[in-house]
Amino acid sequence: MRNITYIPIGIIHSPHEITEETPAQPVYAKGIKGKVEVFPEYLEGLNDLEHFSHIYLIYHFHKSTKVELTVKPFLDDNYRGLFSTRTPWRPNSIGFSIVKLLKRQDNLLFIEDVDILNGTPLLDIKPYVHRFDKIDVTKCGWQDNIDEKTAQIRGKRGYKDK
Amino acid sequence: MRNITYIPIGIIHSPHEITEETPAQPVYAKGIKGKVEVFPEYLEGLNDLEHFSHIYLIYHFHKSTKVELTVKPFLDDNYRGLFSTRTPWRPNSIGFSIVKLLKRQDNLLFIEDVDILNGTPLLDIKPYVHRFDKIDVTKCGWQDNIDEKTAQIRGKRGYKDK
Repeated sequence: MRNITYIPIGIIHSPHEITEETPAQPVYAKGIKGKVEVFPEYLEGLNDLEHFSHIYLIYHFHKSTKVELTVKPFLDDNYRGLFSTRTPWRPNSIGFSIVKLLKRQDNLLFIEDVDILNGTPLLDIKPYVHRFDKIDVTKCGWQDNIDEKTAQIRGKRGYKDK
Repeated sequence: MRNITYIPIGIIHSPHEITEETPAQPVYAKGIKGKVEVFPEYLEGLNDLEHFSHIYLIYHFHKSTKVELTVKPFLDDNYRGLFSTRTPWRPNSIGFSIVKLLKRQDNLLFIEDVDILNGTPLLDIKPYVHRFDKIDVTKCGWQDNIDEKTAQIRGKRGYKDK
């Protein structure tokens, strides 16, 4: 099967400059604001988006330089298969975050709960749709063993409110 | 900014052979079974995944051949900005589906609620984690105007149970 080539459609701006101090997930980045700059040639494609409260940002983990099939997740002390985790060290370094969309101004999206490194190349935006994406799951594997307090502390990683 | 190159890490097998008859979302593909064949070199990365009830499959819409900044979504009669929809006609043809994981057998994942065309190249797998992904949204834009009955009918598209 052939390689697949994508192009950045924008850049994600955030206060996170250091990978090790970037929160692991939006739920551990509550209130942290950022901005998505979508390149002007895609402006028309942003119509109607501002009426959604949450969006998926799909991006390239541009600082990921290796693949590890077995990893120690940020929230856990045990080694796990990479596909059961959200680690950036993946065969294809695709990440996504579900962030709050505060407002749109032309090609700029003002967002909140940002767990994304500053300068990250944006690949796609999709609306969070409750009838598609809010799932009643029955089990979440090793995540079920992590209590919420521990998750909150470890998930913030090195991030400190300024 | 530079192009980004990904490689298929597997293939998604499904009963959907015709794009126009492929359900629009997993919620409109209830009970439809499929199989993910992950290439053997990534086998180790699948450890622990089988303990999650739902997973994200991230894939390349390999039959998408154009970009439309304004599209008529499958569920709606109005034209919308592409990023407020899940259309396959995107600048980067990345799709994802949240499917049920029934079981794993080595490098094969047996899945349900499959809305994916047979032969689709797989790019990534991530676990659905309720504390990350189950979001209480306040608004879903144009989707809020589509009643559930209409969505169920149109979302199935041409698919007929055999």
